[in-house]
Amino acid sequence: MVYVCPMPRRTITSHDVARAAGVSQPTVSRALRDDPRLSEATRRRVLETAEALRYVPSQRGRNLATRSSGQVGIVVSDLGNPFYLQILDELHRALRAGQLRMLVLTPDADERVPLERLVDGSLDGAILTTTVLDSELPTALSERGFPFVLLNREVDDSSGDVAVVDNHAGGLLAARELLRAGHRRIGALFGPSDTSTGRGREAGFRAGLAEAGVPLADELWRRAPFDFEAGHRGALEIAAAGPTALFCANDILALGAYNALHGSGVRIPEEVSLVGFDDVLLAGWDVFQLTTIRQDIPALVRAATDLLLTRLANEGNPLPPRRVVLAPTIVRRRTLGPPPGVRAT
Amino acid sequence: MVYVCPMPRRTITSHDVARAAGVSQPTVSRALRDDPRLSEATRRRVLETAEALRYVPSQRGRNLATRSSGQVGIVVSDLGNPFYLQILDELHRALRAGQLRMLVLTPDADERVPLERLVDGSLDGAILTTTVLDSELPTALSERGFPFVLLNREVDDSSGDVAVVDNHAGGLLAARELLRAGHRRIGALFGPSDTSTGRGREAGFRAGLAEAGVPLADELWRRAPFDFEAGHRGALEIAAAGPTALFCANDILALGAYNALHGSGVRIPEEVSLVGFDDVLLAGWDVFQLTTIRQDIPALVRAATDLLLTRLANEGNPLPPRRVVLAPTIVRRRTLGPPPGVRAT
Repeated sequence: MVYVCPMPRRTITSHDVARAAGVSQPTVSRALRDDPRLSEATRRRVLETAEALRYVPSQRGRNLATRSSGQVGIVVSDLGNPFYLQILDELHRALRAGQLRMLVLTPDADERVPLERLVDGSLDGAILTTTVLDSELPTALSERGFPFVLLNREVDDSSGDVAVVDNHAGGLLAARELLRAGHRRIGALFGPSDTSTGRGREAGFRAGLAEAGVPLADELWRRAPFDFEAGHRGALEIAAAGPTALFCANDILALGAYNALHGSGVRIPEEVSLVGFDDVLLAGWDVFQLTTIRQDIPALVRAATDLLLTRLANEGNPLPPRRVVLAPTIVRRRTLGPPPGVRAT
Repeated sequence: MVYVCPMPRRTITSHDVARAAGVSQPTVSRALRDDPRLSEATRRRVLETAEALRYVPSQRGRNLATRSSGQVGIVVSDLGNPFYLQILDELHRALRAGQLRMLVLTPDADERVPLERLVDGSLDGAILTTTVLDSELPTALSERGFPFVLLNREVDDSSGDVAVVDNHAGGLLAARELLRAGHRRIGALFGPSDTSTGRGREAGFRAGLAEAGVPLADELWRRAPFDFEAGHRGALEIAAAGPTALFCANDILALGAYNALHGSGVRIPEEVSLVGFDDVLLAGWDVFQLTTIRQDIPALVRAATDLLLTRLANEGNPLPPRRVVLAPTIVRRRTLGPPPGVRAT
């Protein structure tokens, strides 16, 4: 490999362009923003000179002039969950269509994002995806009039915009589907009780069992963090109590459970049925074919970015908070069957 | 839900703090950066006033003063590959330890990132992870003295820093391992020939077969994009030609292949052995237990961020380009066995 010493950095400024084109620096700025007061000839001369010098207007200077950074912060605590990867992928596309760039921010060790990291002027707005129920961040952002949207998870009392799936309805859907297949001894791996997703899905699921008069025995349920390892461990603990089916409050828990059961020789769904929540891409893979409650991730992201873009377009003219709630659906695949000893009808 | 109208936005500035604390604005700035020329009493009064007013220093103002944005751009084209998710997760951690923030940039439809998106002053430097071999971006960045590192993929002639695994050695390792297990009719799903990873792994794998005098029949290999669908489709095409083993040039191809073979009733490894490359987290899941060539992702990311941080700390004092090459290892799991009809020795 040949080693080449790069030239010392030398930034071409608008003053260089002005000098080369024989105009003043303000004229260069005007030409770059298509100011109609400039003659077409002058405008063209400046733009050609700028191109010849490979001049790139400074984003920093532009920020000071417009008070806008063109950047949106995405707060996400869990890059290990494929659900958030799909959210990021969709968000990225949606924001780029709106000429915005995506700054990914993850919380510190204590799962909090300091207010200062959001409102230091480097961001036009933010999308919060993994907020815990008692977070004070949304209220602090509202008080400052900082544009933000809660995506996927919400908080108890926020005056901000929200885009979520109906988690209660999704939990209810899962319970009814398991009951309809004939299961009565049903286990559940719920999510953390300090998240709106964990809480809503659990409440909906319990309501579904209750309306059928089916109890949820103490040894058959756990609350766990939304991650693969917790699903793996939790499924083995619950399986020891002999359920015929297991509901997991998200797909990464369900994938952990699937792997654990598979690894210990339990046949799915012949011995234990499994139902997840989210419908991440992996849920549809041949080896899993996971029956799951589906969130429409592209629609959810579109709702959130629409809320944010509308708010950004109306700064100085505050809008009332809006809440978009999408309906979940069920995707029937391979992992839900009748309980052992019962033939499908 | 109660709707609360947020207050119109009103940003507290350093002038507000100065007025409230009864000092000049420059004194506020000095207090905030711990200037020793200030008395302890003044410093404390300013900081307490700033806190009481919930003043947040402007990142924009700071940028102009220090000519540094505290932001690093990460260019990645493939958010659907779990390998890049793990890279992003590690990068995020490493950059935060260096007080830097991560801006995720993905290429436009034509797989190019315009130079202008990187050098507009909003970034201190960049890490490029999915560069194609003929990309002109690294050379253009070098010419401008813009700090950057090529992570995972390199280009043919770049004067920039590079952190990669030895792809040729990894391909060689995979071929030797398959041969050692007794396979002679071996298939291969290689990556795109316009990537250094695709090219290097293919060359190493072919060299491994060649040194043993084992041919690679035309009907037994393909080049494919590095994604799940391509692995799924490619594996079915190659399987029709009856190999006893299949090498895939990365794990997402191998996972696609695994799912396709599993879905068509082919037993792994009893009928077809499978070897991947990367060792993403999913490769170790119970259902896959994929034998694969391992890249040490945390070490790779640490090498890349060290290169970038060193370069940022030496701006104005250009360093010669450096190239860090890590050795791959093999992780032996379940998917590689002897060919059908041959007993393991």
